[in-house]
Amino acid sequence: MNMSFLQELFNNITQRDALLWRRQGGSATPDHTQLLDACRGLLESDGEASSISLASRALAMYNQLDEAERTRFFEGLADDFAAEPARIDEAYAAYRETRDNPSLQQLFDACEPRRQELFRRLNLASNGTYELVHMREGLLGRLRERPRPDAKELGAIDADFSHLFASWFNRGFLVLKRIDWHTPAAILEKIIRYEAVHEIQDWNDLRRRLDALDRRCFAFFHPAIGDEPLIFVEVALHKGLPQQIQPILAGEHREIDDPEAADTAAFFGISNCQTGLRGISFGNFLIKQVVQELKQELPQLRHFVTLSPVPGFAHWLTECRNDESLPASLRTPLAELDTPDWHLDPGLSERLKTIVKPLAARYLVEEKNARGLPLNPVARFHLGNGAELHRINWLGDISAKGLQQAVGLMVNYLYVLDDIERNHENYIAKATVACSGEVRDLNRRARKMAKGENAK
Amino acid sequence: MNMSFLQELFNNITQRDALLWRRQGGSATPDHTQLLDACRGLLESDGEASSISLASRALAMYNQLDEAERTRFFEGLADDFAAEPARIDEAYAAYRETRDNPSLQQLFDACEPRRQELFRRLNLASNGTYELVHMREGLLGRLRERPRPDAKELGAIDADFSHLFASWFNRGFLVLKRIDWHTPAAILEKIIRYEAVHEIQDWNDLRRRLDALDRRCFAFFHPAIGDEPLIFVEVALHKGLPQQIQPILAGEHREIDDPEAADTAAFFGISNCQTGLRGISFGNFLIKQVVQELKQELPQLRHFVTLSPVPGFAHWLTECRNDESLPASLRTPLAELDTPDWHLDPGLSERLKTIVKPLAARYLVEEKNARGLPLNPVARFHLGNGAELHRINWLGDISAKGLQQAVGLMVNYLYVLDDIERNHENYIAKATVACSGEVRDLNRRARKMAKGENAK
Amino acid sequence: MNMSFLQELFNNITQRDALLWRRQGGSATPDHTQLLDACRGLLESDGEASSISLASRALAMYNQLDEAERTRFFEGLADDFAAEPARIDEAYAAYRETRDNPSLQQLFDACEPRRQELFRRLNLASNGTYELVHMREGLLGRLRERPRPDAKELGAIDADFSHLFASWFNRGFLVLKRIDWHTPAAILEKIIRYEAVHEIQDWNDLRRRLDALDRRCFAFFHPAIGDEPLIFVEVALHKGLPQQIQPILAGEHREIDDPEAADTAAFFGISNCQTGLRGISFGNFLIKQVVQELKQELPQLRHFVTLSPVPGFAHWLTECRNDESLPASLRTPLAELDTPDWHLDPGLSERLKTIVKPLAARYLVEEKNARGLPLNPVARFHLGNGAELHRINWLGDISAKGLQQAVGLMVNYLYVLDDIERNHENYIAKATVACSGEVRDLNRRARKMAKGENAK
Amino acid sequence: MNMSFLQELFNNITQRDALLWRRQGGSATPDHTQLLDACRGLLESDGEASSISLASRALAMYNQLDEAERTRFFEGLADDFAAEPARIDEAYAAYRETRDNPSLQQLFDACEPRRQELFRRLNLASNGTYELVHMREGLLGRLRERPRPDAKELGAIDADFSHLFASWFNRGFLVLKRIDWHTPAAILEKIIRYEAVHEIQDWNDLRRRLDALDRRCFAFFHPAIGDEPLIFVEVALHKGLPQQIQPILAGEHREIDDPEAADTAAFFGISNCQTGLRGISFGNFLIKQVVQELKQELPQLRHFVTLSPVPGFAHWLTECRNDESLPASLRTPLAELDTPDWHLDPGLSERLKTIVKPLAARYLVEEKNARGLPLNPVARFHLGNGAELHRINWLGDISAKGLQQAVGLMVNYLYVLDDIERNHENYIAKATVACSGEVRDLNRRARKMAKGENAK
Repeated sequence: MNMSFLQELFNNITQRDALLWRRQGGSATPDHTQLLDACRGLLESDGEASSISLASRALAMYNQLDEAERTRFFEGLADDFAAEPARIDEAYAAYRETRDNPSLQQLFDACEPRRQELFRRLNLASNGTYELVHMREGLLGRLRERPRPDAKELGAIDADFSHLFASWFNRGFLVLKRIDWHTPAAILEKIIRYEAVHEIQDWNDLRRRLDALDRRCFAFFHPAIGDEPLIFVEVALHKGLPQQIQPILAGEHREIDDPEAADTAAFFGISNCQTGLRGISFGNFLIKQVVQELKQELPQLRHFVTLSPVPGFAHWLTECRNDESLPASLRTPLAELDTPDWHLDPGLSERLKTIVKPLAARYLVEEKNARGLPLNPVARFHLGNGAELHRINWLGDISAKGLQQAVGLMVNYLYVLDDIERNHENYIAKATVACSGEVRDLNRRARKMAKGENAK
Repeated sequence: MNMSFLQELFNNITQRDALLWRRQGGSATPDHTQLLDACRGLLESDGEASSISLASRALAMYNQLDEAERTRFFEGLADDFAAEPARIDEAYAAYRETRDNPSLQQLFDACEPRRQELFRRLNLASNGTYELVHMREGLLGRLRERPRPDAKELGAIDADFSHLFASWFNRGFLVLKRIDWHTPAAILEKIIRYEAVHEIQDWNDLRRRLDALDRRCFAFFHPAIGDEPLIFVEVALHKGLPQQIQPILAGEHREIDDPEAADTAAFFGISNCQTGLRGISFGNFLIKQVVQELKQELPQLRHFVTLSPVPGFAHWLTECRNDESLPASLRTPLAELDTPDWHLDPGLSERLKTIVKPLAARYLVEEKNARGLPLNPVARFHLGNGAELHRINWLGDISAKGLQQAVGLMVNYLYVLDDIERNHENYIAKATVACSGEVRDLNRRARKMAKGENAK
Repeated sequence: MNMSFLQELFNNITQRDALLWRRQGGSATPDHTQLLDACRGLLESDGEASSISLASRALAMYNQLDEAERTRFFEGLADDFAAEPARIDEAYAAYRETRDNPSLQQLFDACEPRRQELFRRLNLASNGTYELVHMREGLLGRLRERPRPDAKELGAIDADFSHLFASWFNRGFLVLKRIDWHTPAAILEKIIRYEAVHEIQDWNDLRRRLDALDRRCFAFFHPAIGDEPLIFVEVALHKGLPQQIQPILAGEHREIDDPEAADTAAFFGISNCQTGLRGISFGNFLIKQVVQELKQELPQLRHFVTLSPVPGFAHWLTECRNDESLPASLRTPLAELDTPDWHLDPGLSERLKTIVKPLAARYLVEEKNARGLPLNPVARFHLGNGAELHRINWLGDISAKGLQQAVGLMVNYLYVLDDIERNHENYIAKATVACSGEVRDLNRRARKMAKGENAK
Repeated sequence: MNMSFLQELFNNITQRDALLWRRQGGSATPDHTQLLDACRGLLESDGEASSISLASRALAMYNQLDEAERTRFFEGLADDFAAEPARIDEAYAAYRETRDNPSLQQLFDACEPRRQELFRRLNLASNGTYELVHMREGLLGRLRERPRPDAKELGAIDADFSHLFASWFNRGFLVLKRIDWHTPAAILEKIIRYEAVHEIQDWNDLRRRLDALDRRCFAFFHPAIGDEPLIFVEVALHKGLPQQIQPILAGEHREIDDPEAADTAAFFGISNCQTGLRGISFGNFLIKQVVQELKQELPQLRHFVTLSPVPGFAHWLTECRNDESLPASLRTPLAELDTPDWHLDPGLSERLKTIVKPLAARYLVEEKNARGLPLNPVARFHLGNGAELHRINWLGDISAKGLQQAVGLMVNYLYVLDDIERNHENYIAKATVACSGEVRDLNRRARKMAKGENAK
């Protein structure tokens, strides 16, 4: 995406907001106290028709605030839009007495931060849902930057957003749509912008990825936020499991010009689009629904597999190399990774492969985070969905980014429909990593190598 | 609606459910304990993809239960799916200490009845939202039948539904659609079924009401429950304010065959469709959005007015007549209402008109309920929306129902855009009934009549 | 269809026309000379934008004419809108000289009746295509009523319509749509009206036929005439080939509540909708495209078969019985057909079956019209499409109409995809009737019976 | 448009054709005799369902032919698919006898080149209409290149295409659609490609032109050729009549960010998209329908005007300067046009303006072609539509192309709804050029200047 384009887009949105504001009779730039007053007014209204214009006005004001004023607005939300302690105390006393459902209900109502009702009412405005998602995005930015204790109060606002969004973006409300060259440009430009795994350069690049007989792309949308995709997945139809991402991205991959000749659907990019929906999970639902769609369209498909990045592996490997306990039998050959463009030297590459692949298996299968789950986030996602860690592909991604973050490796996670449920349960219950014999063998070899044994 | 049609419809739904159930491998009819277990399983799942099938299964089971089992299921929800007292006590203690946002958040979470999370998860199923609305409909039926104290526990379940539905059916998520003869039959049959004010006999009757150049009909829909309208309003375009409903219903009203010749949009029927959404208010939003639509399409329209029934007036009038304090100067002429077919006798009708219209003004303007608001529910609705009580129409509805419930009267409530806000605020703040000079005069006359004075 | 409904519909259309006419400034009722003048004006215009309003006006005038004036209008078209003889003579002379393409082109242009250009220009009006189809319908009515020689001149107008319609309603312009309970009422009411094979009583009846898991209905539409179906076919999914129409029409047929359990798609009604498109053939394309659609949706379907009426068979049989050469061994038993309600007497029915079914086979296979093709029009249609005359069903249609026109028989024509081409070619080239062994046996038996032999 | 993009597009289409061909069992590349045979087969088929696959096959073969073979194919069409002379002679003899409608009909049928029926049958294929338009495009290319006498035979094929296309692309079958940023990319890329007046550089450029509150774009589509626009017009909303194209193209024009503030709709580009539809006129209908649309959306619009190029003016001016009769009082100042970048020198530009603008008026108003109509094709188009030659804008287009073809001039043609009909009629009947007083004055001055008088 070139900058001027984004710039223009941004100007455009601001233009519209300004226009709205002017048509609604607003003039001077508002500040956070005016906005907080507008929010109070909205809460005091009776929630009916006049509330719509109050909500629109408040959101237009928010969009006019500069960053500093927005911060003050969020602080005001934290301070003045929580709940009434006295009402809580009273409701709790009553509940303690009876422990029955009606008094629980009273207590629940008393405890609900007024922010939640505020957000529900802001949602009355015609673009309300999107604006609130956008507002949370701003809040999350502030949470990241703040020192911990201070962030806690703002964190409560985030909890309110999460609570509502989990309800509003319930999978029952999501709509799956196919994305292709017949999709409106207003949506496609968002696909270009939001692609997070393998950047899309421009419209021609997009066309190469989407508009071929061997490509599919699907996204979840929410009816109330129109053109904004929530998450999307890119798929290449293939004969056999793909090993390398570059041919797919280049669109050189056209031996499968007839989709009915493919036996594999390869998911090569899943991108979340809305920062403001962080923590609301869609990916799992998306993959499974897309598998259903593809099976319906192309009943001959037999394999559903990802071609996934391994972010963090290079970092972990560097730490290994820095670890003094690493046997020399590994340290020496790994040093060759420092050779510039090692991946272009076939002999060197082949030597490295015999060492790095086993270590990658080990990284993916054995290395765990504080919660006892795999350290690698992509692995966590697919294993949690019930997929199997199926194959590690040497030189799977030889882009600068791929080499830098994963020593060029990519991984196939395989979704075997009959095993998903069991894999998922074992993963949840026992953190078991489902993996293929091949990966298990690699891991075993890594164990031997770590002991300095010959890893054959 | 003839019965065989409804019967078939019902069979059809049951058929589909049964088919679903069979395809999902279910066999024997389940009972409430199985369903409660399924609900527990759903809550214990991790809320991701496997939850979809658990949710579908639970809803299919609910649909298989007979009425007695459903009652037991609701009792189980009340007993076993509330909150954990210990967790609440602990969270309250912490909150009491700090009174800060994070501890409030904890307390709020602890107080949320588990039913709410259960309902959110049931909503994962593909028809979940509709099924939950339907489930609440069943619950409301039980609440009506039960003796008070006993109903209280079930009432808490209803509060949970209300809480979620208010969020899910937020106006921001609703979609306004025009209903006409190009609308799918699956929706039109629901319009026939749900019309609550002036019954629609059959498809030919529907066509007369919808498919003419002087008719408009609009409904709110929710994206997740597809073909099911939530509420709809019927409009007739008119020259001047309409006084009588029968010509409109008969579709004889075609002097305005050119919509551009109309100056008035008359709202002659507003029907809520989903019993299971009781208390979630849409009507206000609907009327105002429809006014906007009509103004856009037909800029020459000047008056937006209802032709509304007066349910309860006949009942109130009977009570008046039974009241011993009623002066004989009223009692005697009112006795003529007992004459069969009095409305067909012009002289008699004219005599009654001079007495009954003032009493109707009095009933609408002065008679209040326990909360100090007008006794008449239709008046409450429109006055609450900011409309003006504009005109009382003698022989406005001479159907059996109209004569029986309102002595044949109908009322025009007028929506004057510039006054709506002020009327609404005065009504909310001071219960002021906005009314026209004509209605005020009628009311004054009624006051005199009540004192036995000559009411000229 | 009850009359009042059609009546109202008609009024409605007339209303709209009148409104259009009035808005366009027309006043008094026009006559045929005014219309012919308007047509001349349209032809003299340059065919661009002003022509649109000229065309609209001419069509509105046509709709205002009474039947007698319309007849005169058609006569005027025949007399004054043919071609210019002098121009033809000249062009022919030139063509005769050169015999080349350019002079042929000149001759072709000179011969084109001016009506064709007139119709193309009338088609500029927004509802033009539909109005022209409607106009031809009126013309066809006149052609039927007229004595032969006189009709010939009007017949030329019909040839002009045919020529244009064949081009405009080319299969490449047709759109296949599924008809179901989600189809707009405006279309469904036309399905009710146009069903020609087995009348649809009302909306409830329609719903029974369409809105079940085992039913499908498809229609061809033309983009320029919107809601008007051109032809539609009704399908019931079935296990095995259906024998009787009554259970299908009654919708009692629900053992196949799961469409995926069906192995047969039974086409039980094909109805042409537009009289004004007589002779423009769609049925063939429709059946084959529907077969494709169904195979895509339900790959397990193995048989595509009709359940078709046998109009004319009863008439033919009566003639047989009146034929003196009929052997007594047939005449006597056939006399039992005169017994009232013979089909309700199992013994009698069984006796008749052994005689009538062979005769039906003979009627369908052997009896030919002047062009050497089967006498039965339904047989001609399906055999011409490449289907096989597969089975004759005794008591297949026991409605009054079915008994009266076909002694209760119905026929299954089977579409075997691999045989269609060959059957079709043999039928076209040699008038060969493709039929099953069973039908061949019946025919053989009929031959013996005709000779008075014992037909075992 | 960069080349790689077009290249890829082209490959893509070829790919699909090849795939189709392979799936249909075709293998080696066909030649023109095979294709002509296939065409004969199609004509001999009975025009029903088997014809669809024959048509598809023939079109796929055509797409496989190289250019030389296609030429031979067209020659074959001219030679072997005309009409039968004997049949024509016979029909003419009969017609000569009777001069009645039936015999005229026979003659007309006999004269119709078999190509027309062939094209109608090729149109049965699913993409047939588009392929035929494409085929004519190829034919037109050949017609341009050929020497006259030789081209005549191929010209007859073109006449057949024209005859059919005029019928198929009747305005009654066209669909107007708004083009904006929500339009599918597959359509937008065609807008980029087909823009003929002011080239669109890339997607960002397109977005600037389309996706702003002050822009509108509309296109005509034909239902049978899906995503292919036939013609489109670009509109900028404006305060007052625009004088210069560059600010509009640059999208700097945002003082009108509120469309409701505009009083003028400026049509700044009309592009025909399908070479293969040359001579089938849409532009007139398009402009008038777009005016209707805009008036409906924005009732406050008062002026509908173009900002149009003046192709050919620079050429004409050069010829003037070369004409020896040109008075020196003009010749000398005009010589300054040879100064490089004269338009950047305000004094020089101002001097030239006083001479060149009058000459432009003269060129537009007085210079006529062989048919007595204005020499300038853009003037012919808009004057023929009934517009008025309203204003000549100095430095209206200072792009290289604008300077080169029109000395930087642009013209406003004004569409005054009440005058359109009269202007059009006067133009058609008397070739009258409707023009404003300002333009008339300029023309008068030019006349004086031509005589060497001082043109004040």
